[in-house]
Amino acid sequence: MDLMLMGEKAQTAGYQVQKLTAEEKNMGLGAVADALVNNADAILAANDKDIIKAKESGMHEGLVDRLRLNGNRIKAMAEGLREIIRLADPIGEELESFIRPNGLHIRKRRVPLGVIGIIYESRPNVTADAFGLCFKAGNAVILKGGSDALASNMEITRIIREALADACITPDAIQLIESADRSITNAFMKLNRYVNVLIPRGGAGLIRAVVENSTVPVIETGTGNCHIFVDESARLDMAVAIIVNAKTQRIGVCNACESLVIHEKVLSEVLSRLAPALAPYHVELRGDEAVCQILPGCVPATDEDYGTEYLDYILSVKAVADTAEAIQHINRYGTKHSEAIITEDKANAEQFMNEVDAACVYVNASTRYTDGFEFGFGAEIGISTQKLHARGPMGLKELTSYKYTVAGTGQVRP
Amino acid sequence: MDLMLMGEKAQTAGYQVQKLTAEEKNMGLGAVADALVNNADAILAANDKDIIKAKESGMHEGLVDRLRLNGNRIKAMAEGLREIIRLADPIGEELESFIRPNGLHIRKRRVPLGVIGIIYESRPNVTADAFGLCFKAGNAVILKGGSDALASNMEITRIIREALADACITPDAIQLIESADRSITNAFMKLNRYVNVLIPRGGAGLIRAVVENSTVPVIETGTGNCHIFVDESARLDMAVAIIVNAKTQRIGVCNACESLVIHEKVLSEVLSRLAPALAPYHVELRGDEAVCQILPGCVPATDEDYGTEYLDYILSVKAVADTAEAIQHINRYGTKHSEAIITEDKANAEQFMNEVDAACVYVNASTRYTDGFEFGFGAEIGISTQKLHARGPMGLKELTSYKYTVAGTGQVRP
Repeated sequence: MDLMLMGEKAQTAGYQVQKLTAEEKNMGLGAVADALVNNADAILAANDKDIIKAKESGMHEGLVDRLRLNGNRIKAMAEGLREIIRLADPIGEELESFIRPNGLHIRKRRVPLGVIGIIYESRPNVTADAFGLCFKAGNAVILKGGSDALASNMEITRIIREALADACITPDAIQLIESADRSITNAFMKLNRYVNVLIPRGGAGLIRAVVENSTVPVIETGTGNCHIFVDESARLDMAVAIIVNAKTQRIGVCNACESLVIHEKVLSEVLSRLAPALAPYHVELRGDEAVCQILPGCVPATDEDYGTEYLDYILSVKAVADTAEAIQHINRYGTKHSEAIITEDKANAEQFMNEVDAACVYVNASTRYTDGFEFGFGAEIGISTQKLHARGPMGLKELTSYKYTVAGTGQVRP
Repeated sequence: MDLMLMGEKAQTAGYQVQKLTAEEKNMGLGAVADALVNNADAILAANDKDIIKAKESGMHEGLVDRLRLNGNRIKAMAEGLREIIRLADPIGEELESFIRPNGLHIRKRRVPLGVIGIIYESRPNVTADAFGLCFKAGNAVILKGGSDALASNMEITRIIREALADACITPDAIQLIESADRSITNAFMKLNRYVNVLIPRGGAGLIRAVVENSTVPVIETGTGNCHIFVDESARLDMAVAIIVNAKTQRIGVCNACESLVIHEKVLSEVLSRLAPALAPYHVELRGDEAVCQILPGCVPATDEDYGTEYLDYILSVKAVADTAEAIQHINRYGTKHSEAIITEDKANAEQFMNEVDAACVYVNASTRYTDGFEFGFGAEIGISTQKLHARGPMGLKELTSYKYTVAGTGQVRP
């Protein structure tokens, strides 16, 4: 494992990928998609090794399932790459162009980020997805997957590299760190000379570890302690339908609702409608005093509850006196991901949209829409919860930077 | 020093500043500008304390001068704020607006970053400049200045806070860390809960320390190992004029030229014209073998020379066989700041602009133009040399983020 060499190769590859036309990149992606399907048996054989090791080590069945590939999942990986082919190439776009009084012609042009590092957990499909998006945006990637999926990731990477080489594209557009050694991962997070950005994909623990240890710029993604605020003026049938959707439609995702904030004037009415609607899903409510008084047997919510992304059939509930208090609560406990208000009051909707500090702020809709496809951007690398560089769904454009070119005729600064 | 409390106050202040109209912010900035001029005596008295301490500690006269304020420098600080008043307010701008097939109306709006941390060295004028830019872009700032300038910074901050309070604006829009304790600075760099971005302003050592120790997202600014490549087809009179300007017009700035790359076919001719042109400035040339053969007595350049931002009357010189080799050399040793080609060949110019990896790439102009005012953006907080978030001159827009608002009519995800 020579990380410096890997970094140098990635940088060189990045400079080459940057020069490819949209057609050349699409041809490469098509070749990779075909190769994944054609080599499905080899991928499944490698995946079997990971599965056997995981079972031997006593891995929870849910996690083993996340790790498992089959013919359909491999086809889905290939289809994901074909969807990326259909997305417009963001590179080369002229963002601004102007001529200064001294005659200098300044143009601002979209360029790739360069080398993107991705650190991710078990799902081996991320290997192909992340490569596809980064590559289409003109970047080289260095991937560090979970050690549980190492055999699968190695085989997928091998196939991608081979397909690229066959298409006369540098295989170093994708490199995989094959070591499970933590010191290597730590060194990777400090490879500032070669890596332009690190994107962790996984649970809160992984993201925290990357933020705390990385000197390379990081984009934080994915942690979503999402709230729904039911205002006094809300249509309660709409509120209940949205809450049930946002909580239960898919339980383990970052845009699922984790906490309710309810105007005290409608608290009793909302809870009496909500409890039976959530009952089929066995959702546990954890409430403040006001909530517990109305719902006997309700688990009292702690301060920790309000700050927790459950990813489970649990909802914390807090009563508030008005929109301002709701906003204050959400800004204190939220993770700046997706927050919603259910209201028929335009002023409250406006205040909520202006003052809630989150990537996506909803009025009368489910938080589950925070997603690259739902926004119409196509495949995404993640949902950014930080404010620097990109916020919310990160598609191809968010995997780019820009440069200024300045054309002169001999100008010198007086 | 309770950093957590400072952070909380800054966050709250940020949410308040975010709500101010352009008029309110401009009124605040005007009040601050007046107050600085009206309290010049108090600022100078505080500055005297810093100067006496600096002299007692044996500080180099050049550094003492950087630290020193006088009536004109205070007026310049006020004038800087008045220039910021004249800049358009970036906040609230609608960047995109579209309606999805399901009826969701998605808008992308420019919002402040929130809380910006600035860590800087001696110059006390940065206190007012940095506050002005961050405030106009709707942010709160926490400043950590050099301990040499502590008395000056405290007095300037006190006056700004008082002027804000008199204008009915939260004084916590600016807070100064008054401790010189390194452990406080380190804790500040890890205040992720409250600080959205850290911008170091100062020398390479300061910037490196911030990048290495901060868990808050950092924008790297200012290190400029800028090259000028003289192509075979260059007009040599233009090349010499640009090199002299970029090297000597102002020696200690990040966009000054530090290294020459010269096409071997014109090496001898360029050097014979350049040597006398640089002679009046006593610029020392450090060259590779080819250069030293032509210029007897030339200091041989080491690998370290090529990577050094001298900020002094020294230039490294390297001969290359073609544009591709020049690009490779620059991408290896540059700091991604500003790079120039002097050429009459359109294809070489195009290749250089496309392939050199830098914030600003020049054709036939001096690198000294990389500057917010020269670009027409107005005052800047620094020149970003990273690719994430902002690249090149960072004005008001680069001190903002965005959010998506999504207006629905009860949509739930199928």
